[in-house]
Amino acid sequence: MKNLSIDADRLWSTLMEMGKIGGTPAGGSRRLALSREDGEARDLFVHWAEDAGCTITVDRVGNIFARRAGVDDSQPPVCIGSHLDTVPTGGKFDGVFGVIAGLEVLRTLDDAEVRTQAPLEVIVWTNEEGARYSPVTLGSLAFIGAHSVDYALGRMDADGISVREALAEIGYDGSTEVGNRPIGAYFEAHNEQGPLLEESGEVIGVVTGSYASRYYVITVKGMAAHVGPTPMARRKDAMVGAARAILEVNRVGNAYGPDGRSNAPHIEVYPNVRGVIPDEVRVSCDLRHRAHTTIDEMEKDLQSALARLGEKLDMGFELESYFAWGPMSFDPELAELLRNTADELGYGRQDLQIIAGHDAVPMTEVTQSGLILIPSRDGLSHNETEYSAPEHVTAGANVLLHAALAKAGVVADGST
Amino acid sequence: MKNLSIDADRLWSTLMEMGKIGGTPAGGSRRLALSREDGEARDLFVHWAEDAGCTITVDRVGNIFARRAGVDDSQPPVCIGSHLDTVPTGGKFDGVFGVIAGLEVLRTLDDAEVRTQAPLEVIVWTNEEGARYSPVTLGSLAFIGAHSVDYALGRMDADGISVREALAEIGYDGSTEVGNRPIGAYFEAHNEQGPLLEESGEVIGVVTGSYASRYYVITVKGMAAHVGPTPMARRKDAMVGAARAILEVNRVGNAYGPDGRSNAPHIEVYPNVRGVIPDEVRVSCDLRHRAHTTIDEMEKDLQSALARLGEKLDMGFELESYFAWGPMSFDPELAELLRNTADELGYGRQDLQIIAGHDAVPMTEVTQSGLILIPSRDGLSHNETEYSAPEHVTAGANVLLHAALAKAGVVADGST
Repeated sequence: MKNLSIDADRLWSTLMEMGKIGGTPAGGSRRLALSREDGEARDLFVHWAEDAGCTITVDRVGNIFARRAGVDDSQPPVCIGSHLDTVPTGGKFDGVFGVIAGLEVLRTLDDAEVRTQAPLEVIVWTNEEGARYSPVTLGSLAFIGAHSVDYALGRMDADGISVREALAEIGYDGSTEVGNRPIGAYFEAHNEQGPLLEESGEVIGVVTGSYASRYYVITVKGMAAHVGPTPMARRKDAMVGAARAILEVNRVGNAYGPDGRSNAPHIEVYPNVRGVIPDEVRVSCDLRHRAHTTIDEMEKDLQSALARLGEKLDMGFELESYFAWGPMSFDPELAELLRNTADELGYGRQDLQIIAGHDAVPMTEVTQSGLILIPSRDGLSHNETEYSAPEHVTAGANVLLHAALAKAGVVADGST
Repeated sequence: MKNLSIDADRLWSTLMEMGKIGGTPAGGSRRLALSREDGEARDLFVHWAEDAGCTITVDRVGNIFARRAGVDDSQPPVCIGSHLDTVPTGGKFDGVFGVIAGLEVLRTLDDAEVRTQAPLEVIVWTNEEGARYSPVTLGSLAFIGAHSVDYALGRMDADGISVREALAEIGYDGSTEVGNRPIGAYFEAHNEQGPLLEESGEVIGVVTGSYASRYYVITVKGMAAHVGPTPMARRKDAMVGAARAILEVNRVGNAYGPDGRSNAPHIEVYPNVRGVIPDEVRVSCDLRHRAHTTIDEMEKDLQSALARLGEKLDMGFELESYFAWGPMSFDPELAELLRNTADELGYGRQDLQIIAGHDAVPMTEVTQSGLILIPSRDGLSHNETEYSAPEHVTAGANVLLHAALAKAGVVADGST
């Protein structure tokens, strides 16, 4: 069984085939959560999974479970999951690699006529990216009960289309209860979203835990007035206030050493027309750090800076937290299993901490959860040109294969 | 004839009635150019003008001409014009005051059975604000031939709806040729969009000329990457670049004395989602100053500052000019007529320069053009709470009445 290996060519071509859905001229993919393209990608996954003999279940928030029966089908399944949605200018690897690697594990077992004691499931989570619907990892958070189903279904995109409507539109408004589904263990593989593996030259990153991440909306309140005649000294220009706030967010990320991160990637301006000094600007931002105590300091630093800006500019600056996660730890036993698996397969590996959210994070609340990363060229992701080499994609899938087999239990000759 | 006066109550109640169309909870009006609300406002104006015996003409870009025949109808008409469109959070006075004052002039002449030698026309210009369609004063610029009709009809709003489509939707896609319409003289009355009249206590501002205004788009090019794991030092965050550019624009407006103005009220962020460091940000901005030589300096200053930012941050900063007007002068003879009219009516007056665009500016290219302003509370406009007192509204309309009569020539007893 140790010599069992996934089919590298099939894995790569399946990955490239999926990447064509919502394909962009720059070589990336645009499959916003629950869009027509996301629907097509789900349909293709379901088609492939059914071809591999799986039973498909879709829950009320659109999470898809593709199940390969176990010899003892009453055991909780060992799961491999990730997502098919992308950011607007996403790449071919983020999320989809984890899903297609899971599918390749099932196909490999079918080819080798290997049966497992526990069933296996490949999971496609809804709206991991948080690009169309806020917050991130919406499907897995609903699965573990962190958000109610009504909350998840009621989330709105920028055009006022709810998750409920979007699910119905693409036919993934499933009827199965969300959560309350025993899971034996959960594995996820993902392309790294930073440069550490590329720098070290290792192939597999075994994730032991995460940074703390805190998400906020800064609301700057100025006063609408005509852009021309209003004297400069009389203005309360919320755009100028927002620009200063964005630079404060950036300063805080830089001020707390190499482990500090911050950004302000999303802005809403009212009224955002050329003739009116903006009345109100909302900036979404986040702060991240490895240490819990430091992120507290960073938040206080940002809060004080915004308060000083408010006094100096005589405008309102409000900092409202809307989501937070981490620092957290992944299951030590699964991490050790993943290290040993990589070693046995001869892949160089190192321990890592994640700074981005993944569905494997919420899953730690309901089962043993393990996450591995593979290298990304130039440490780049959320970019149409993100790229992981075929040998690294292969390595990640092989680690998933053997780690899942170890947890599910192999029935050697394939007979019951 | 000197004692002839407009009906202050009728003028005020007509103004308030028009303000209800697109009325906002905060007491303002939202009538974006060629929206359903703008269409309703146009319909109401046309209804009122027809009730006053006017003939209506609509040209191909939707400019409306309501004509009251003169005794010698072959003479070019004396016109009073402004606009009915508003910014998204506009008030009840900007634009609509000038149109309704023109209508009140016609109603007053009807009541007094006064006929004029030359015909009179009240003009409603299309898309003065530039809020839905860029640039500002689109209808009057097309009228004087500064933009071709095809250019004007092809302008797109943020949802990809063209002026051509929007005009057809509200039934103002007229068939009359744009321009080539002789005009004897053009008058416009507007609420001031700054604090000068309120500060001086005068009632009528006679506008002698304008500041120079230059409009630009700054394009900042960064690199998309994941917001979390990407180390701060590796980022090319176009939002951080844009924030710095906005503060440079603001600095330049402040750096050139009390006559300097600048703002950056409009931003487009790509992709503007919470998980991706922005790749590209476009900021629309403008610079204004009284002196032609100084605005050149301001532009060079901004250009150098952006070039320095580009080098420092290793990102692209491009400054592209898309529109410019002024400094310009209004017709000295009409200005003198407006001063004398205010004096004869006993209204305190002062000369002013405008810093905002008005349809009276393009009209200087094709006829004698005169512009008066009335005070605004707190110098505020482009704000739902903008307010001009009834006595000032009355004063402005009376000046229009007598100045127009002076130009059109009165037939004293109303008989031909």
